[in-house]
Amino acid sequence: MPAPRYPFLDGRAARGPLTLAALPAILALALGVAATSVQAQSVADEYRDVAERLIQAATDNHFAYERLTELVDRFGPRVSGSAALERAIDWMLVEMEADGLDNPRGDPVLVPHWVRGQESLEMILPWPREMPMLGLGGSVATPDGGIRAEVLVVESFAELAERADEAHGRIVLFDVPFTTYGQTVQYRSRGAIEAAKVGAAASIIRSVTPYSQQTPHTGNSSYEEGVPRIPHAAITVEDAMMLHRMQDRGQRPELLLKMEAKTQPDALSRNVMAEIVGTEFPDEVVVLGGHIDSWDVGQGAMDDAGGVVAAWEAVRLMKELGLQPRRTVRVVGWTSEENGGPGGPDYAETHADEYHVLAMESDGGVFKPSGFGFTGSDAAFEIVREIGTLLEGIEAGTVTRGGGGADIAPLMATGVPGMGLSVDGTRYFWYHHTDADTIDKLDPDEVALCVATMAVMAYIVADLPETLPR
Amino acid sequence: MPAPRYPFLDGRAARGPLTLAALPAILALALGVAATSVQAQSVADEYRDVAERLIQAATDNHFAYERLTELVDRFGPRVSGSAALERAIDWMLVEMEADGLDNPRGDPVLVPHWVRGQESLEMILPWPREMPMLGLGGSVATPDGGIRAEVLVVESFAELAERADEAHGRIVLFDVPFTTYGQTVQYRSRGAIEAAKVGAAASIIRSVTPYSQQTPHTGNSSYEEGVPRIPHAAITVEDAMMLHRMQDRGQRPELLLKMEAKTQPDALSRNVMAEIVGTEFPDEVVVLGGHIDSWDVGQGAMDDAGGVVAAWEAVRLMKELGLQPRRTVRVVGWTSEENGGPGGPDYAETHADEYHVLAMESDGGVFKPSGFGFTGSDAAFEIVREIGTLLEGIEAGTVTRGGGGADIAPLMATGVPGMGLSVDGTRYFWYHHTDADTIDKLDPDEVALCVATMAVMAYIVADLPETLPR
Repeated sequence: MPAPRYPFLDGRAARGPLTLAALPAILALALGVAATSVQAQSVADEYRDVAERLIQAATDNHFAYERLTELVDRFGPRVSGSAALERAIDWMLVEMEADGLDNPRGDPVLVPHWVRGQESLEMILPWPREMPMLGLGGSVATPDGGIRAEVLVVESFAELAERADEAHGRIVLFDVPFTTYGQTVQYRSRGAIEAAKVGAAASIIRSVTPYSQQTPHTGNSSYEEGVPRIPHAAITVEDAMMLHRMQDRGQRPELLLKMEAKTQPDALSRNVMAEIVGTEFPDEVVVLGGHIDSWDVGQGAMDDAGGVVAAWEAVRLMKELGLQPRRTVRVVGWTSEENGGPGGPDYAETHADEYHVLAMESDGGVFKPSGFGFTGSDAAFEIVREIGTLLEGIEAGTVTRGGGGADIAPLMATGVPGMGLSVDGTRYFWYHHTDADTIDKLDPDEVALCVATMAVMAYIVADLPETLPR
Repeated sequence: MPAPRYPFLDGRAARGPLTLAALPAILALALGVAATSVQAQSVADEYRDVAERLIQAATDNHFAYERLTELVDRFGPRVSGSAALERAIDWMLVEMEADGLDNPRGDPVLVPHWVRGQESLEMILPWPREMPMLGLGGSVATPDGGIRAEVLVVESFAELAERADEAHGRIVLFDVPFTTYGQTVQYRSRGAIEAAKVGAAASIIRSVTPYSQQTPHTGNSSYEEGVPRIPHAAITVEDAMMLHRMQDRGQRPELLLKMEAKTQPDALSRNVMAEIVGTEFPDEVVVLGGHIDSWDVGQGAMDDAGGVVAAWEAVRLMKELGLQPRRTVRVVGWTSEENGGPGGPDYAETHADEYHVLAMESDGGVFKPSGFGFTGSDAAFEIVREIGTLLEGIEAGTVTRGGGGADIAPLMATGVPGMGLSVDGTRYFWYHHTDADTIDKLDPDEVALCVATMAVMAYIVADLPETLPR
């Protein structure tokens, strides 16, 4: 008996019966709308069978989810500079070798090494409360004994400027509700700078998230030359709102902040990678991956071991199915993305002599995929959009304009077309950079769909008769 | 211009235009199905106007939500035996006096006084992790220096019995997924007893919740005469699942548990209450409320300050509207419900000489109400169901069979009809007994609807020409 098709797609990931028989009708519909050239139609026609094989293989089991679980359970969080990160990379190299992939290796990269140490935030007045908190990456420590001060709550940099004369010696709290990550994260990035400019003793932010269960979120932050470096930490949405209400009520809450954070000398890490060497154009590379480092809390399962493992599985499946494309397909786990580190730039520099056909990144969580965001020429967009139609059977065929990722940005800056996996982001920022970024937040079926989506796109682009145009 | 009707009911709480004009049609429909006697119809007819006034007054503003916010922000969590609980009660008495309610007073009650102290749980092997945890109410401390031991994960008491010979000297973890509270909570209640019987050094449970962001849940637990008392604590769903996977993988995770918990001598607390004395039958009482104590984390906003304040507001509104029913309506904040304490029984005993017509409790969160669960005679059920029809305009008119609450159970045991407010419980157990039970989890409009629901039911039952039959 043949294996069942998409055995676990039970109507959640697909609306109709998901057999190969359904694909022609879907494709005909899609192509009737989207196709603009005979050439594009023939790409879809030519690769329909192989796409089906890849999708079937990816969704046939939960191999990627199980490997991901093992990775995050074995090594835990993998912050830049930690032994856990390097042990995880060692393990990946062994596993990639066992997978039979070509050239498993780690390119050495010097990475920042920030260590949290012990830390706490206590409300002293009006009543005692230990507030869940996380120091922000790169922060300095408090003096021994901590900083005890009244809090000044503001809801924007503009309000801080208006109340600048109240800030001296106080702990400034930026109680900024989440709108978009891009808008709200500036208070994490620049909060300590702006607070220090008006004489604050320390800076704390409301965690950058739309939802919280007293969940503090960490993340990178920065200082500015010539501005005093003050401790910078995040508290929960709940506590930020409470302190704000207290201030509005005329109370003057007092906090005690203790942090031992320090930045150690840069450490040696690696961009970890393996590949299937292309049959015809081995020096032309389709690269796909995510970042193997994480923050130092939780498991970094969603951000971003999931992206690395799903891309890895996409390549492993090609190997398992005996699919060797014309060009090289390479999976990379970039290092130190979270610490604004040099993993991405280092890769672009080290591999500058190779011709990168396409760079693909997954760093938005391996939730249910919908397709890709793509940055590149119109001609290339037409082609990847046509390839996308082969993913409509799993509802992951939508390729939109605009997309990339932090680790492939340096490659994209040199003209390489880039694409980011698009997924259901509903809960991404609930877990991002928190202790709750753990494997249980991911769904094995959805992870498998991410694998299928990346596998089909990467394989076909790597195997096209002609190089993806720039 | 007349005030707008239900100004903030924007289609979420009500499907159609919510004016008084819509009520007759709704009622006709409801009564056509439900009414079995002319008497019942006349109850709805007679009280339609006053119900409308109460609903309008309750939903006209966010007074209850604001009072609730002030209570939980001012005093924080209010665990049995704490100064915070007594200060909150003092404040309520002052406020009830200011509201013009009759006889604000506190009945003295001796309550358990368990103090958490410092506590921590660390995974030592296979890699270091500080696990979020909460000691369970009533637990003993660990010895100084803590208990360091291998963990034994089981998923039921039955599995523990099968693996009894592996438990000696180990920390037993009950990794039991949430099904219903009633089913799952037995591992919190009896986990330490069952683990001690097979020689475990300590007992930890997976927190009793269907959803977690590394959120530990506390709650009451118990020991058994003749069985050693071992420390008993809760860890998060995420960590319980991880330890379980590690064990399944053949690893032997090792934990270090430190707890300073101790039980101090019983402390003096109060059941806090106030009322509107009935015009005709002052010794006949409709009592409504919730419990004013909480656990010692978060704010106890949902569990159960919300219930107390919503009931209080229901009575305050009657006063404000000049509605003095024939019988006495009394709001009570029972004390020490969480610690299985004597607030409820003490009330029943102290007030045994009064005739309680109905006891109503809200202890499921003040989320969007749907009506009540009712326990009492068929004749009484018919009447309260008819009164419920007056709440259909706010979709809170469903009265079902069966309902009550822990604090009114001792009254109900003496034959008093009981009812519990029914609400949307979707997220109740996400926050229950956690640091995340904070005011921001509640919606001001939904709190107001709870007020309206309780006000209409309590007022009408207290004002009926005849006492609710038993």
